[in-house]
Amino acid sequence: MSDIIVQKFGGTSVGSDERIAAVAQIIKKAKKDNQIIVVVSAMSGETNRLINLAKSFGDNPDRREFDALISTGEKVSASLLAMALNSIGVKAKSFSASQISMKTTDQHSKAKIIDVDGEKILSTLEEDVVPIITGFQGVTESGDVTTLGRGGSDTTAVAIAAHVNAARCDIYTDVDGIYTTDPRVVPEAKKLDSITMEEMLEMAGQGAKVIQIRAVEFANKFQVPVRVLSSFKDGNGTLISLKEENMENALISGIAFNKDQTKFTLHGVEDTPGIAYKILGPVNDKDISVDVIVQNISVNGKTDFTFTVDSEDEEQVKSILKSKQSGLDYIDLLIDADIAKVSIVGAGMRSHAGIASKAFEALSNESINIQLISTSEIKITMVIEDKYLELAVKTLHKAFNLDK
Amino acid sequence: MSDIIVQKFGGTSVGSDERIAAVAQIIKKAKKDNQIIVVVSAMSGETNRLINLAKSFGDNPDRREFDALISTGEKVSASLLAMALNSIGVKAKSFSASQISMKTTDQHSKAKIIDVDGEKILSTLEEDVVPIITGFQGVTESGDVTTLGRGGSDTTAVAIAAHVNAARCDIYTDVDGIYTTDPRVVPEAKKLDSITMEEMLEMAGQGAKVIQIRAVEFANKFQVPVRVLSSFKDGNGTLISLKEENMENALISGIAFNKDQTKFTLHGVEDTPGIAYKILGPVNDKDISVDVIVQNISVNGKTDFTFTVDSEDEEQVKSILKSKQSGLDYIDLLIDADIAKVSIVGAGMRSHAGIASKAFEALSNESINIQLISTSEIKITMVIEDKYLELAVKTLHKAFNLDK
Repeated sequence: MSDIIVQKFGGTSVGSDERIAAVAQIIKKAKKDNQIIVVVSAMSGETNRLINLAKSFGDNPDRREFDALISTGEKVSASLLAMALNSIGVKAKSFSASQISMKTTDQHSKAKIIDVDGEKILSTLEEDVVPIITGFQGVTESGDVTTLGRGGSDTTAVAIAAHVNAARCDIYTDVDGIYTTDPRVVPEAKKLDSITMEEMLEMAGQGAKVIQIRAVEFANKFQVPVRVLSSFKDGNGTLISLKEENMENALISGIAFNKDQTKFTLHGVEDTPGIAYKILGPVNDKDISVDVIVQNISVNGKTDFTFTVDSEDEEQVKSILKSKQSGLDYIDLLIDADIAKVSIVGAGMRSHAGIASKAFEALSNESINIQLISTSEIKITMVIEDKYLELAVKTLHKAFNLDK
Repeated sequence: MSDIIVQKFGGTSVGSDERIAAVAQIIKKAKKDNQIIVVVSAMSGETNRLINLAKSFGDNPDRREFDALISTGEKVSASLLAMALNSIGVKAKSFSASQISMKTTDQHSKAKIIDVDGEKILSTLEEDVVPIITGFQGVTESGDVTTLGRGGSDTTAVAIAAHVNAARCDIYTDVDGIYTTDPRVVPEAKKLDSITMEEMLEMAGQGAKVIQIRAVEFANKFQVPVRVLSSFKDGNGTLISLKEENMENALISGIAFNKDQTKFTLHGVEDTPGIAYKILGPVNDKDISVDVIVQNISVNGKTDFTFTVDSEDEEQVKSILKSKQSGLDYIDLLIDADIAKVSIVGAGMRSHAGIASKAFEALSNESINIQLISTSEIKITMVIEDKYLELAVKTLHKAFNLDK
């Protein structure tokens, strides 16, 4: 038996009858060399159409019914794609979540996959029929329809790939892979042939637009190689690999960045054990993600505590820090929205020294001041004044020879 | 426990968010006196939208996938209606065919209902939750989605009513009941409070626009009283009753008519045993419905044989009768498309003589020549020249006091 490949096609890939016909040709071609299982999203625009219908009945529609409603979108695209395949001589059958027993938890709109009937899928393959599976949805133990949350089709595809021991999960989308950085900022940005899963997770800022982070985590957990590629043009895309292969030369894989950040600095806060929790606990309680966190050395029992959040959370964080309940004692609260984050990401960092200093030198040569620095094993993040962001991204991209 | 009523809402009744909200109010009101089970069609226009999508992949799309596709329409309206009910404080849950095990044969697009899990529906009622069931669809033993054919939601509703021993099945539509004849022809036409199932079947020409004939036959078989009424305005509609109640006075229930008919006469055909079959067998083989059939008395071993068909079948019937294969021997073939059928229908006919002669007299007084007459137990059909149709309908309507 040839290898099994799971192919997942997103909303824009199946956004019209022409697109569905094009996807059918991709599947037909791939089927010459491998056994193919397909997972589809709803046609682009369809989920929003259904959500708008639901909003007619209030802002907070019944969750069970909401999931039952929007899950019809993938049923439509799955059966249309099966028709398209049958019409060009490739036997195919659509399967809804209930038809392959895609069991999930009962948290409507953010259900988690528990199990799936891999046997049903495999027996379909054995009949030389391509199974076309609805992404994004599942059923509870009692048979209610659930959805996994936006972008959940990626997770469906990886889960199925894990269950049937697929050789690879191909995520087809409208971009042709992961780039060293955003090509709109650096025209010389190069498409990566491969990237490690860890790097992919660290590239989230850019990568989240291409593949859902939860799906990458899932692939990591179940050791499923994932490839991201375009359904609009030929190409090999980018492989999100399990192993760090050939990483000797590629120290840095890419430059991620994010402009929509606000920096909070509590100046002259008392440096006592638990002060970080006292400051950030209430922020986390509101489900606000805190990113770069830096605490200066203590002087006379006082310190400066700085962190960044998404700009959309600025007002909420401000009111938390200023509220009397927080009981925080500080000299001044400084808020700066004119900042940006730029990160260099690379698994090769682990075994190579001097990456950080090279980055700092490059920015220094352009007189870009680094306000904050935060490092992980495979990522160095720098916070700078936002007007320098594009220059910083271009400078770092060049300094690490990513355009070569 | 109060009586169970099954309410079925057609496509125009749930054609927009406003309409769905209005239907939710109808259900809420009905729930004060009875236990309510709801069956819904797809929003009007939705099924055609889906069919057009399917047509992108050829005129003959895979039947299994076609059914999987168009069955999403009722899932959408069912979940939206459940949301609408929950939003006004009436607990409701949508159920797809698979969720209530609505088992059918595997003839895609014209499946027949085999069984349904009445217990699941009844246990939902016991929880004081209104079950909203998708009409028109089922699942095969192996879990494939099927559809019952257009208008099949009526059949779904009657089948469920039969399984849960409902007191009545209410078919909500965009007309407020069955009329004595078409109000566009006779403005004095009156809405009937009740009609017998047999009369309803005989009224098919008019009635088929209101309720699917198959559903009436089903109701007849399982002895489920059906009521036809409007979801757009208040009123009691028309009850399609099991028993012939109070029929003493209402000899005639209504006047049915049909203009799109063509009359074929084989003049001077040999009057031998089996001649009717020899003429009509090949016509029936082509799935062409033959309606009024009249054979004159024989003169010198020759007779005239006349029948009517829908005008759209005229050319096909002509070529069958003229083909050499038919081996028919006749003097002349007369074809007349300028005819119309008018019928008086009434269960009271059985026990009352003189109905036919009263009809003939009424038409004679208006100098309308009757070309053919055909009678059943509860119907008298007359074929006349089509230009007299409206006059004939009005005359008969008045002669039998249907406007009183």
